[in-house]
Amino acid sequence: MMKTSVFIVSLFVVAAKAARNSSCKDILDNSVTRPPSGIYTLEDSRGFQYQTYCDMLTNMGGWTLIASVHENNAQDNGRCTRGDRWSSEQGASSLQPRAENWMNQNTFGNVISATADDFKSPGYFDIKAKNLMIWQVPNDTPLEDWRPASYMRYRTESDFFDYFNGNLFQMYKYFFPIVSNQYSWPADNGPQIPVVFDEGNGGDLVSHFGPSVQQDLTPGYIQFRALNTYLDAFAICPGVKLSESSAYGAPHACFGSTGDNAGTKYCGDFAGWTYSGYGTHTDWSVDKYLIETTFLLFYR
Amino acid sequence: MMKTSVFIVSLFVVAAKAARNSSCKDILDNSVTRPPSGIYTLEDSRGFQYQTYCDMLTNMGGWTLIASVHENNAQDNGRCTRGDRWSSEQGASSLQPRAENWMNQNTFGNVISATADDFKSPGYFDIKAKNLMIWQVPNDTPLEDWRPASYMRYRTESDFFDYFNGNLFQMYKYFFPIVSNQYSWPADNGPQIPVVFDEGNGGDLVSHFGPSVQQDLTPGYIQFRALNTYLDAFAICPGVKLSESSAYGAPHACFGSTGDNAGTKYCGDFAGWTYSGYGTHTDWSVDKYLIETTFLLFYR
Amino acid sequence: MMKTSVFIVSLFVVAAKAARNSSCKDILDNSVTRPPSGIYTLEDSRGFQYQTYCDMLTNMGGWTLIASVHENNAQDNGRCTRGDRWSSEQGASSLQPRAENWMNQNTFGNVISATADDFKSPGYFDIKAKNLMIWQVPNDTPLEDWRPASYMRYRTESDFFDYFNGNLFQMYKYFFPIVSNQYSWPADNGPQIPVVFDEGNGGDLVSHFGPSVQQDLTPGYIQFRALNTYLDAFAICPGVKLSESSAYGAPHACFGSTGDNAGTKYCGDFAGWTYSGYGTHTDWSVDKYLIETTFLLFYR
Repeated sequence: MMKTSVFIVSLFVVAAKAARNSSCKDILDNSVTRPPSGIYTLEDSRGFQYQTYCDMLTNMGGWTLIASVHENNAQDNGRCTRGDRWSSEQGASSLQPRAENWMNQNTFGNVISATADDFKSPGYFDIKAKNLMIWQVPNDTPLEDWRPASYMRYRTESDFFDYFNGNLFQMYKYFFPIVSNQYSWPADNGPQIPVVFDEGNGGDLVSHFGPSVQQDLTPGYIQFRALNTYLDAFAICPGVKLSESSAYGAPHACFGSTGDNAGTKYCGDFAGWTYSGYGTHTDWSVDKYLIETTFLLFYR
Repeated sequence: MMKTSVFIVSLFVVAAKAARNSSCKDILDNSVTRPPSGIYTLEDSRGFQYQTYCDMLTNMGGWTLIASVHENNAQDNGRCTRGDRWSSEQGASSLQPRAENWMNQNTFGNVISATADDFKSPGYFDIKAKNLMIWQVPNDTPLEDWRPASYMRYRTESDFFDYFNGNLFQMYKYFFPIVSNQYSWPADNGPQIPVVFDEGNGGDLVSHFGPSVQQDLTPGYIQFRALNTYLDAFAICPGVKLSESSAYGAPHACFGSTGDNAGTKYCGDFAGWTYSGYGTHTDWSVDKYLIETTFLLFYR
Repeated sequence: MMKTSVFIVSLFVVAAKAARNSSCKDILDNSVTRPPSGIYTLEDSRGFQYQTYCDMLTNMGGWTLIASVHENNAQDNGRCTRGDRWSSEQGASSLQPRAENWMNQNTFGNVISATADDFKSPGYFDIKAKNLMIWQVPNDTPLEDWRPASYMRYRTESDFFDYFNGNLFQMYKYFFPIVSNQYSWPADNGPQIPVVFDEGNGGDLVSHFGPSVQQDLTPGYIQFRALNTYLDAFAICPGVKLSESSAYGAPHACFGSTGDNAGTKYCGDFAGWTYSGYGTHTDWSVDKYLIETTFLLFYR
């Protein structure tokens, strides 16, 4: 009977533990040995169960994938279409210059398809976190290759979410809404939080952006709610901060747009990254490698 | 060994019960004590498992959330876009004046995001119900606040679904299709079913609608398939019925539109609720509070 | 104690088995008696769990539903809209003539709604298969009636996926991309694989297509990546192959389009099937029965 009892107990323990894991950090903390990176089922604070990816390697692990930002077509008629969920879903509009999905509890996409389409999990607004990590991965990379294929990986270390209620949802909703024509430039630019690089380096990161914007960029930061002088607002400048005098840089170095002041040219998940042509790497346009990148966002 | 056996038995009972819960009413009926309101996993008649919200308080509980109707942008270029799943998904069109999702077995959205986007669960067509309940909740209200934040809650008591095969899907598909230019006004208006209010009252409810349509409205009902004299069809008039002589009222007091006879002005989940401007509360336009409301639909 | 032990063991066996079922073939192989057709939970190679439909009857069973191709509106303004996920999601475009979802690891839709909207499960790219089966079912047929309502069912028997890395994703991504203006007609037409019919027959199948294209069609095959002389590319010709001299046939007999050489007339899941009017069955247009058909795709 000994063997039977062991079976029962382990089954029960597994079930009981599962119910308490609201983040990959919980999974790590509840494990005796380091669990592998991969897909896990989490349960949010309302009892909703969902699957997402845990990175259990970076800086001792415990990182939860909470979103991906993916541009399925940054060319002319692919801007601000249904594939652009991190900008205004209604396209460029002077009446609705809001990137609403940064500030609400909507969810979309699927962890398994996070590099083929936009993804937003309940973790985005449910998990109470301290730091943000970003991975830059080529579009369509399969999940098992995310880490080896990532060419940039960086993360904050300062527990900055402590000052903004614990996650991006709270930060954008209550501190730095992504709304155009409403805030002052440069006074209302959002915080610029230092990051450390686990893969890649700041010089290489900056080199992928358009030549005309590079002089405005300092790598080693993530900037939130970047504005330009036209008062368009952008959610995240990945791996960089803009100089305070950068009147025009935000749409060309940051993603998550509401821009309406350049017509559709600032509209789309990646805003004005193709302002001077698709992947041309001239003037304000990023190179082809960067425009075909998916940004994976993690909390811990 | 006694303790071990208890563990085994309870595990088994939980598993066996879960398989039989096709609605929140089943969960209630299978429980010894009243279970709390919140998220539960249901299994439909085909064996498909999904999560939704159960209200276990109203009139002894057992109410299943089966859908939400949410307008993400009722302003000009947000009408009949991808955020309008309860009207025609192709926009205004004289060739396709059908609000197909009321009449099919499509599903979309997510219970956790029901006030941030449209939601339609398998329960919409799978559950055999007797009554309909509607909650009016401000957009973006988090799930745990739905009940306290709801400013209107009303429900039918007459078991009217008995006459229409048990749910909205059956009723719209086989009795009252939401198709424009096909039925006669006022002869083919759908049924007007009395409701009782659990929160709010009819006078207040009517006061949110446009001044020009208020004289046509009697609160204390839910009307189904309302037509106007142009033969546009609308799925639900929430909390109100239209007078038989209301030639123009339907698009301004009902949601779930196929309207194509006013161009895009009757197109969108909330049809002609902004006909005289967004949230102006003049002429045919509802006030800002109502236009930014999510309607939560429950069965029991 | 005997009964208790049996309980424990069966629970454990069920749990252990579930983790290993990555396809309906696995479920069949792991069962002592033939399991019924219906909805099952599978787990892909990355540990992601999802529900889909298994056909356990055809030729001894073990067939996994991996996708459905459904046109929600083939009429004028319904072409290449959000309901057309198997053609270019950006609409007709000379800049983006790719039907990307055949070649990526995106997922969308829901097994329970596979005849009411497009569906693509992780199985599409995760399962290593040998053969493809297609069912033609009228739109909006409920899941339990798919088999009895199907008017055509056919499948390959030659294990042809062995030559293309085991599934459609691999075949389209690495061997036959669905991209327009890039390959030569007729040299780069994809393979034409023979099928056997389990329901319906080739003569009847061909008769549903437009009169002008019928002479180019030979039933009893599935053709992949069909091109026309304008170099538009189409993913699948269901149940038929095109003659090598068919310069214009592909958009009118095949689905999964990137066509941009006829403006929006070749754009949409079903490409040029309504080229001569909706359901007219004259010239290049299919009949109404075929245009309102959902194609269910299975692997084994």
